[in-house]
Amino acid sequence: MSFDVSNPVELSFSEIEKARARIQGFASLTPLLNFPVLDEHVNGRVYVKAENLQRTGSFKFRGAFNRLSLIPQADRAAGVVACSSGNHAQGVAAAAKILGFPAVIVMPEDAPALKIQRTKALGAQVILYDRERENREGIAKQICAERGATFIHPYNDSGVIVGQGTTGLEIAEQCEILGVTPDVLISCTGGGGLTSGIALALEELLPECQIYTAEPARFDDYARSLETGERVANSALSGSVCDAVLTEMPGEKGFSVLRRRGAKGLSVSDDEAMDAVAFAYFELKLVVEPGAAVALASVLSRKIDLAGKTAVLTISGGNVDPAVFERALTQYAAGEKTPA
Amino acid sequence: MSFDVSNPVELSFSEIEKARARIQGFASLTPLLNFPVLDEHVNGRVYVKAENLQRTGSFKFRGAFNRLSLIPQADRAAGVVACSSGNHAQGVAAAAKILGFPAVIVMPEDAPALKIQRTKALGAQVILYDRERENREGIAKQICAERGATFIHPYNDSGVIVGQGTTGLEIAEQCEILGVTPDVLISCTGGGGLTSGIALALEELLPECQIYTAEPARFDDYARSLETGERVANSALSGSVCDAVLTEMPGEKGFSVLRRRGAKGLSVSDDEAMDAVAFAYFELKLVVEPGAAVALASVLSRKIDLAGKTAVLTISGGNVDPAVFERALTQYAAGEKTPA
Repeated sequence: MSFDVSNPVELSFSEIEKARARIQGFASLTPLLNFPVLDEHVNGRVYVKAENLQRTGSFKFRGAFNRLSLIPQADRAAGVVACSSGNHAQGVAAAAKILGFPAVIVMPEDAPALKIQRTKALGAQVILYDRERENREGIAKQICAERGATFIHPYNDSGVIVGQGTTGLEIAEQCEILGVTPDVLISCTGGGGLTSGIALALEELLPECQIYTAEPARFDDYARSLETGERVANSALSGSVCDAVLTEMPGEKGFSVLRRRGAKGLSVSDDEAMDAVAFAYFELKLVVEPGAAVALASVLSRKIDLAGKTAVLTISGGNVDPAVFERALTQYAAGEKTPA
Repeated sequence: MSFDVSNPVELSFSEIEKARARIQGFASLTPLLNFPVLDEHVNGRVYVKAENLQRTGSFKFRGAFNRLSLIPQADRAAGVVACSSGNHAQGVAAAAKILGFPAVIVMPEDAPALKIQRTKALGAQVILYDRERENREGIAKQICAERGATFIHPYNDSGVIVGQGTTGLEIAEQCEILGVTPDVLISCTGGGGLTSGIALALEELLPECQIYTAEPARFDDYARSLETGERVANSALSGSVCDAVLTEMPGEKGFSVLRRRGAKGLSVSDDEAMDAVAFAYFELKLVVEPGAAVALASVLSRKIDLAGKTAVLTISGGNVDPAVFERALTQYAAGEKTPA
């Protein structure tokens, strides 16, 4: 997304601490969970940061609430505009509702029905567009120009990133309480807001922890960009069940953080993501959407060897349409795979 | 179940503390979760003790592991026998596997397929019986006599009850960390092992907290027994989707604790339980089985007014067959109800 991006704050650890103070009492402090069944599976120790249990069902509320809190009083009545296929939409809508702004969300017509419905239920005005024929940035720009509204980028915005970084603060503190020092952190990655936010927090608190991005196989722009050192784009814009983490290319800000931290990339097939959704149902008793299951999938399908290691992974959301969820369970139970 | 019951320990608070030391490192310390969407629904503050996230997918592992740990060394090789339609089966099987005993589980042929499969996967020998033509106690007694095995009652056993009571210890400590004092605790109740264990812990730690049992409507033996002061039986033994909490009548030990504590009873229809399963999917992102959703259902269907109050409720398990789960989601989405 090439929309002009504001830089309301520095991309720094101290801004993550300030963000935490802002979201406290509004965002949930989500649990860091351990499951013996998962530890046995990898022959190591795995902790799951369950952001599907966050308000609105994904981590996106953290960044949205922090970013909206930074809007000057004079600009608040004009409201906010966001483009999103779903989780950022709900995060912005919920934050706007709490803070008392109007919110307009530009969503693709083919966004999951559940996400459209939930965004509307949060009081936002939803404008649907046709991915093939219309330009969402054009629509968003026009609304911003007409109303004087503030555009809220889903990930390439420092206010959003430090908000997502509160997840990393919590992870580090929860690890300390448990008395564990993670060797690796694996996070579901689309534009990179969550993963870079966590990386920024851990740079200060757990500097030895190796960061991994987890992505769908044909949308592994972060993996390839981190390898080459330059931001590269995906060849496709759609065509994966992992809708929550499909972006054109890494966000500039997120990439700069993850490159500096020496992050590495993992990727999984759609089938592996769907199997992880089913594993989470049968074994973890968590509702996870496919795009938010890619980090878990990378562990279950042994894209990384965790034997003897301690890992933290994110489950970043749980807003999954029942039809997709049922398909995941059916495929898994039958042991059948659709072509990858 | 009239099978002879052993009393390996006192039914006391100090035994719950000992049980906690025994299960530590084996059972999970499950989170106490808060969801703004649920608070808004009841106009109060609700905390969810998520025992579906416990090892084996239900609280039953706590009591089973504690009880099996109390078996004298000389009797261990002969193993254990349990009768269960599913969650106690998995709890006993997992505990026996960890402690190195053989386990035989007597399960009804019509137990949920997922529960039979998971019990076998934990290494237990499963013997299926016909509810109509066979007597499970007779089968269990015969195996115990032949092998010298120890029978593990699902709830009318003080070693099991104080094990389940560790849930109450955790709730009280988690409430203290959060700085909240619950007015009421609502717990899913079958034979009463979990609820009486929690009540025993809270008697010491949160003595002002009003305890409520939650049950399916036609299996509200605790509600009726607590009202009359005497243990009364249900007229039916089966016929509810809430398989996890269907018992003939309150356990003697559990009832004695809950009567002393002045507990009261709530009940919900099968449809209300199924709606709570769907609510947990859509809004809480938790996988909950119908019998373990009755406490949540009692809150959602306003069987108790929580306006301005602070409540803790248990979600006691998540071992639900996909077909039942899908039916819950479909009914909820359609707003249709099957006859109660």
